[in-house]
Amino acid sequence: MTKQRLGVCYYPEHWPEDLWTEDARRMRDVGLSVVRIGEFAWSRLEPEDGRYDFDWLARAIDVLHEAGLRVVLGTPTATPPKWLVDKMPDMLARNAQGRPRGFGSRRHYCFSYEPYARECERIVTALAQAFGAHPAVVAWQIDNEYGCHDTVESYSPAAREAFRRWCEHKYGDIGALNRAWGNVFWSMELSRFDQIELPHLTVTEANPACLLDFKRFSSDQVAAFHRRQVEIIRRHSPSRDILHNFMGAFTAFDHFAVGRDLDVAAWDSYPLGFLERSHRDEAFKRRFMRVGDPDFQAFHHDLYRACGAGRLWIMEQQPGAVNWAPWNPLPAKGAVRLWSFEAFAAGAEVVSYFRWRQAPFAQEQMHEGLLLPNSEPNEAYHVARAVARELESIDAKVETECADVALVFDYDSAFAWEIEPQGQDFSYFDLILDFYGGLRKLGLNVDVVPPTPEAMARRKLIVAPALFASSAALTRAFSESGALVLLGPRSGSKTEDFQIPPGLPPGDFRPLVDVAIQRVESLRPGAQIPVEAAENGAFVRWREIIAAGAEAAVLLRCDDGAPALTRRERFLYLAGLPNDLLRDALLRRLANEAGLTLIDLPEHIRLRDNGPMRYVFNYGERDFDLSPILGEASLLLGERRLPPCGVALFRRPG
Amino acid sequence: MTKQRLGVCYYPEHWPEDLWTEDARRMRDVGLSVVRIGEFAWSRLEPEDGRYDFDWLARAIDVLHEAGLRVVLGTPTATPPKWLVDKMPDMLARNAQGRPRGFGSRRHYCFSYEPYARECERIVTALAQAFGAHPAVVAWQIDNEYGCHDTVESYSPAAREAFRRWCEHKYGDIGALNRAWGNVFWSMELSRFDQIELPHLTVTEANPACLLDFKRFSSDQVAAFHRRQVEIIRRHSPSRDILHNFMGAFTAFDHFAVGRDLDVAAWDSYPLGFLERSHRDEAFKRRFMRVGDPDFQAFHHDLYRACGAGRLWIMEQQPGAVNWAPWNPLPAKGAVRLWSFEAFAAGAEVVSYFRWRQAPFAQEQMHEGLLLPNSEPNEAYHVARAVARELESIDAKVETECADVALVFDYDSAFAWEIEPQGQDFSYFDLILDFYGGLRKLGLNVDVVPPTPEAMARRKLIVAPALFASSAALTRAFSESGALVLLGPRSGSKTEDFQIPPGLPPGDFRPLVDVAIQRVESLRPGAQIPVEAAENGAFVRWREIIAAGAEAAVLLRCDDGAPALTRRERFLYLAGLPNDLLRDALLRRLANEAGLTLIDLPEHIRLRDNGPMRYVFNYGERDFDLSPILGEASLLLGERRLPPCGVALFRRPG
Amino acid sequence: MTKQRLGVCYYPEHWPEDLWTEDARRMRDVGLSVVRIGEFAWSRLEPEDGRYDFDWLARAIDVLHEAGLRVVLGTPTATPPKWLVDKMPDMLARNAQGRPRGFGSRRHYCFSYEPYARECERIVTALAQAFGAHPAVVAWQIDNEYGCHDTVESYSPAAREAFRRWCEHKYGDIGALNRAWGNVFWSMELSRFDQIELPHLTVTEANPACLLDFKRFSSDQVAAFHRRQVEIIRRHSPSRDILHNFMGAFTAFDHFAVGRDLDVAAWDSYPLGFLERSHRDEAFKRRFMRVGDPDFQAFHHDLYRACGAGRLWIMEQQPGAVNWAPWNPLPAKGAVRLWSFEAFAAGAEVVSYFRWRQAPFAQEQMHEGLLLPNSEPNEAYHVARAVARELESIDAKVETECADVALVFDYDSAFAWEIEPQGQDFSYFDLILDFYGGLRKLGLNVDVVPPTPEAMARRKLIVAPALFASSAALTRAFSESGALVLLGPRSGSKTEDFQIPPGLPPGDFRPLVDVAIQRVESLRPGAQIPVEAAENGAFVRWREIIAAGAEAAVLLRCDDGAPALTRRERFLYLAGLPNDLLRDALLRRLANEAGLTLIDLPEHIRLRDNGPMRYVFNYGERDFDLSPILGEASLLLGERRLPPCGVALFRRPG
Repeated sequence: MTKQRLGVCYYPEHWPEDLWTEDARRMRDVGLSVVRIGEFAWSRLEPEDGRYDFDWLARAIDVLHEAGLRVVLGTPTATPPKWLVDKMPDMLARNAQGRPRGFGSRRHYCFSYEPYARECERIVTALAQAFGAHPAVVAWQIDNEYGCHDTVESYSPAAREAFRRWCEHKYGDIGALNRAWGNVFWSMELSRFDQIELPHLTVTEANPACLLDFKRFSSDQVAAFHRRQVEIIRRHSPSRDILHNFMGAFTAFDHFAVGRDLDVAAWDSYPLGFLERSHRDEAFKRRFMRVGDPDFQAFHHDLYRACGAGRLWIMEQQPGAVNWAPWNPLPAKGAVRLWSFEAFAAGAEVVSYFRWRQAPFAQEQMHEGLLLPNSEPNEAYHVARAVARELESIDAKVETECADVALVFDYDSAFAWEIEPQGQDFSYFDLILDFYGGLRKLGLNVDVVPPTPEAMARRKLIVAPALFASSAALTRAFSESGALVLLGPRSGSKTEDFQIPPGLPPGDFRPLVDVAIQRVESLRPGAQIPVEAAENGAFVRWREIIAAGAEAAVLLRCDDGAPALTRRERFLYLAGLPNDLLRDALLRRLANEAGLTLIDLPEHIRLRDNGPMRYVFNYGERDFDLSPILGEASLLLGERRLPPCGVALFRRPG
Repeated sequence: MTKQRLGVCYYPEHWPEDLWTEDARRMRDVGLSVVRIGEFAWSRLEPEDGRYDFDWLARAIDVLHEAGLRVVLGTPTATPPKWLVDKMPDMLARNAQGRPRGFGSRRHYCFSYEPYARECERIVTALAQAFGAHPAVVAWQIDNEYGCHDTVESYSPAAREAFRRWCEHKYGDIGALNRAWGNVFWSMELSRFDQIELPHLTVTEANPACLLDFKRFSSDQVAAFHRRQVEIIRRHSPSRDILHNFMGAFTAFDHFAVGRDLDVAAWDSYPLGFLERSHRDEAFKRRFMRVGDPDFQAFHHDLYRACGAGRLWIMEQQPGAVNWAPWNPLPAKGAVRLWSFEAFAAGAEVVSYFRWRQAPFAQEQMHEGLLLPNSEPNEAYHVARAVARELESIDAKVETECADVALVFDYDSAFAWEIEPQGQDFSYFDLILDFYGGLRKLGLNVDVVPPTPEAMARRKLIVAPALFASSAALTRAFSESGALVLLGPRSGSKTEDFQIPPGLPPGDFRPLVDVAIQRVESLRPGAQIPVEAAENGAFVRWREIIAAGAEAAVLLRCDDGAPALTRRERFLYLAGLPNDLLRDALLRRLANEAGLTLIDLPEHIRLRDNGPMRYVFNYGERDFDLSPILGEASLLLGERRLPPCGVALFRRPG
Repeated sequence: MTKQRLGVCYYPEHWPEDLWTEDARRMRDVGLSVVRIGEFAWSRLEPEDGRYDFDWLARAIDVLHEAGLRVVLGTPTATPPKWLVDKMPDMLARNAQGRPRGFGSRRHYCFSYEPYARECERIVTALAQAFGAHPAVVAWQIDNEYGCHDTVESYSPAAREAFRRWCEHKYGDIGALNRAWGNVFWSMELSRFDQIELPHLTVTEANPACLLDFKRFSSDQVAAFHRRQVEIIRRHSPSRDILHNFMGAFTAFDHFAVGRDLDVAAWDSYPLGFLERSHRDEAFKRRFMRVGDPDFQAFHHDLYRACGAGRLWIMEQQPGAVNWAPWNPLPAKGAVRLWSFEAFAAGAEVVSYFRWRQAPFAQEQMHEGLLLPNSEPNEAYHVARAVARELESIDAKVETECADVALVFDYDSAFAWEIEPQGQDFSYFDLILDFYGGLRKLGLNVDVVPPTPEAMARRKLIVAPALFASSAALTRAFSESGALVLLGPRSGSKTEDFQIPPGLPPGDFRPLVDVAIQRVESLRPGAQIPVEAAENGAFVRWREIIAAGAEAAVLLRCDDGAPALTRRERFLYLAGLPNDLLRDALLRRLANEAGLTLIDLPEHIRLRDNGPMRYVFNYGERDFDLSPILGEASLLLGERRLPPCGVALFRRPG
């Protein structure tokens, strides 16, 4: 079992070299083990075309090594230097208006521009050759935050050409594409693949099937760009972990696909920044402004752990105020520690704070670090030291187990419902996050899984709302899982080609549930369809009119008599988007029936098991009495009266 | 008198040919008489440049004909195929930012690009020659929804050149243009017509006179484009009706001008979609989310009947949820029938549902039809059948008569106040619709008319608020009408050249009312000017300070003493935008004085006479007791206790 | 001491020549002394390239001269005619999307385009030679409202080239620029000045140091453009005043820098339009919709008086409703007079109404003037006459004295906090205006001053919140001033290069206050940090965590214990953005301690001394009893019971 450690992000190139040794000593002293460096340093590694300067980096790695620190080395391809952009100006991505997205910040490249990909191969090869065998280098980070600043999709000539070839490869002949996209509609039929245009600057919305393929193509370009670097590193730096740092609430590419070329899935966790940017209402944002959404971080831990086939890092952990949200409050006292343990509870191997020392210059100068710009400790410095000591004291290890509950998360579905929300506030991500929160409030551990047959095995409860397309394989997997399976709304409502299934939704899932979805409606804010049996429970934003077949029992009805929830054997179909009350009541009923052990948690208290170890977290503003949960167990962390931001740990009874 | 019928929109090219016969049989069986086809089928009619394939269309028409159905054939010019766009890429319109509006949806053409207009003439000629004499073809629809997706205005080089020639034709010499536009202001004077730029991408707002001429020019381009097809059809398909399907709440071109080249004005009525997109407040939208604005449809029926010189069709009638509004709820049970009869009450010859079968692919796959995608009946299928039976049972015919009340609607005024709202929420369309609703709530039938002298004849009450420019001819027509005439606010406040009249507003109308408008103000939301004599009545958004001449009596004053309503003989001037209470009180007073018979209707009940036949509609959520209105008459449709969405019909007593 | 006068803006080119003489006579009759003309007349002065037509202007000036009026002659460079734009299309500025900002309104030129600057020199030379010695011409206005419609910044090729040269001149070698901007961050390092790109169209935000330099450069381009005209006028029209008409709430260039090349700073005062466009809340906007923000005008008078080294004009004074705000209400009866005297109280030499007669055509036809379009008097005509009489009766003269209180306003700080608000509603302008209002509500006269050492002399209280960069010189000036000095929040938080000071904020100011700013946070609306000792006082939007040194006493603490206000000798540091209650309590305390005489004013009453003369203004809706303020003094204007919009004047006792 992997020991759980702390790390930090460090930019030796930002500081005078005479600070490095002292920095490394202090890192060690704090209890940090892992240091990420190099991911934005291209202009220092290759100051002009073809002239490498790796010496400084070698010295920096040596300094860290001598202090006993492990290095994660980043490839610098997220920030190509100016001389490279000047050499190949067409490497820039184009935005949806067709304008080049220029030099002067970061991620200024188009994934489809082949000459740039070759430049990346060149610099990565040189770096891997130089440092791939260095004993301090334990891992590589490929590029940085793919897609950040809306950079997955590019409307460049290179992207257009690549999309045409992608379509040709997928469909073979243009007639097949015309049929798949339904191009007979509005005379959109094409006679050659070279007639395909990128779906932008159209008079009104483009064909959703074309948009979906463009999103899949754009996602594939990210994965292909990524794979080229992975292959180089594997060759020149064997046995090192390869990782990438994903972002939060980000669905512009298929992270599972990139994950297939990773050893570890990492993500960058900024609870306060993400909360400010979320769709949560004003009251929620105010209440949690200093601790973050109680479920947001855990959701991503569970999601990305699946992306990493079980291996998870927090590559960047918010240590204080950030600079990039609409408002940037300071974390509550204790919040940074809370977030750290929330990650470890979910099986993170490393939690790495971003960044060591606050930079006094450039875009992120208002982003706090462990140190102030003048090298004095900031609050998170002390927090990190304390967490390091605690990790030691509890002998923290990754002990994650397969959860009884699987919540299906599917990037194609996120693409589909972004293209066709049908009601303008319909968000797949928010919907899934809400179901996650509902399950978690019952004290359950949840795996967030891709819609693959293998992910359904060994489950007691599978929740798969709004899963865009059905398939025979998944239908079989649901059947064979033995689990209670909740589908709907919108599950299976399209074919893979973004068409309504010939036999009506839920398509291939129809035999499971024996209902047909005939009509749907989206509901404006304030409109709702009450559902019987749940006090104040109702459908909001979305509801469906379903025809229940002979084998389907109607478990709940709407006040207007339409079926709200149906069941055939272990398969349930929910005919609308539930409000919180209905969702919570429903999940409780399902979890009980699935034989899961529920724990009644007050609002703001969350729980997570790391194997036999149970963590309890207090996101509220009042103390929480652990006694009923704790039972006879004795606390390894925390007190029986758990204060705000408190973390409790104990060995789960039984 | 024309018999009233049902129709449907059908896309044979979307379906396997072996479905057509059964489709036709079922249409007939439902009671549909009219089928619109072909309007988006260019890529099937001409798969490559110059190679026509009309056979399938001939077979489809024959199938419909054999089932006894009448065909409306659409010209396919709203969706030019990709090969044509590739052949002449400059045919694309340019948006206000100067970007081409590309292929991939519909309406991707510039009205001013002559080579495209010639291509349209070519395909329309071929179609008219092929099908113009077919006995099933009873009408032609030219193009589809001119202006949809904001496509009236184009900023292409072709549009610029055409606008220069249009100005040259209008003004003759550039000095006249400079004077008309007031170009001495800000040194905007020109010395040649070729110096004219389209009014976009200016540093701040462009000259309003230039903007107005650009809107008139753009409108003229639509009418000219339309006329070229009309002339071809007239030549090759004599004695068939020519129609176009207008949209709702759309004022980007002069529909009366296009109407002069139509036999029938049709429009596409989507009550729920239009309500969601309207400026109505949230409470209103929620209340009427399943039945639509009680006055919106009737207003357009009355407006477009005037555009069609008395002949009106509903070319597309919403049959269920649509896909294109911010939210897309299902209609209430009964709403589709309600909308159908509201149209027939207003004199529609045909109500045609959009569409026969829901398409499972492409942009409109979430738009419901009479059939589900799998050919099973959806709710509207049964509704259509019932309505067809009822039309038979009541022997429904168009019996529209000239209304006593004329409400003036003027597209130039819509242009003018869009250009110069002066208060950012001033909307000419909303203002007129509100006056329409006020009149209709008194149980009155209203003609919505253009500001032409002939439209003023045979009226008892003429309401003409915010009519942008006065004219001597209209002044005379008002005088000679014998009607009570309500002007103001903003009526006659400009010359045709968008200048303040030399003798102050209301310009030529001044002798009628003997007031001069000296000052105006727009009022922010929440600000209002109370008006005496109307409980809680007030001006909102807009008010004027007027000098009343010796012949003008002040009937109402604002609380600050300024005249609110003046009168000289039969001519009244209203010095502000009334809130609902003031507007309703004022209209009641005027209608009474004009000798009109008023009927006190509760909120949500509406009434409309089709000649001697009186319809009553219930847009509310409670039953309505018809007895007081019905008197001794006996019901042909509906019950004395009219339920929500109920329709009553009886022969008007007297 | 300069006599205070009225003026008006006049456009002879808009009217038939036979109106001019009568216009001049009526101006004189009203009591106007000064007439501004010519500033938009280029197309009439030079109808085609190189052909001047100055005769009409000469006749117009003579007519005005003969009526005894003084002329301010505008240079017409804000509205280059179409033939000039056609001759050099690259003269157009480019917006941030890179698009030319075209002909058709005004200000369509790029400050960096040298050929256009030479054309301006040519026309200005010709005008100065023709009219520079005319006895009626007493002053010149250079161009018009620099920066209006967001025209300071241009992204043209000319601007890019000029910015590269500006950077080269500032930094000398590219390494210095790289260090100053912190370009090592994100590999932004450059190797040649010609690699610099303008900071737009970047993938995410550009480097703040680059943005700041671009704003400084853009500001310098305005000043340089301005200076070239000034030098010509000085040469050909000696002893005439040179002025420019600035705008309100406008911070896109350094007005103090332009002011160094002015004899008089003028501004265009539109109280109602500016209020509508401001960030004030809805309730405030509604309450003051007809009188304007009680502090906004006075603030600008005090600011621009400093820009003009003590000499201030109101070049354009709102006389009625305007046309350009979201809503455009009429001023309250008395408001125009109130605004006029507010300006005279602040030392304005001239208040000039915009405009003489309302134009019936073009963009500003809804902007009222002293006359209606048909030459009848509008309300402001009578107001102007009355004010003129009053000025005579009180023998009004400029008697402004140096104020005890200095409020520092710094354009670089406005640039900096626009670039890096850190909380999205952080506005430097609003913050300073709020402090100004707080001081003014205590009955204090305030000088608004630049952050120059000399401006600090002879003060009792200096208020300098959010002053972006500290400097040794200013630190010394604060020390030597003998004044109580209030710094914070954000004061001295950056170096001039937009970096966090090496020794932490407040940088050079740190020795004065002996605190270090360690952390900051921005707070979302509704979040606040209560501060003890002020009932309901709190920090909002912004607060700082400070470490107080041994010499700093903590005067106030936040409820969470953090220092809120510290003091070392005469130097105070405020660790957050105060809400109204806290700000007012704090300013009262400081003013008392500074030995200033405070006057308790009810809400809506304002006061201003013009030397020994004290003005009192009533912006409220109720009468105000002057007795307590008036004491034994006798009123020169107004009554003891001062009505809404009332103005009182008396000789200050003592």
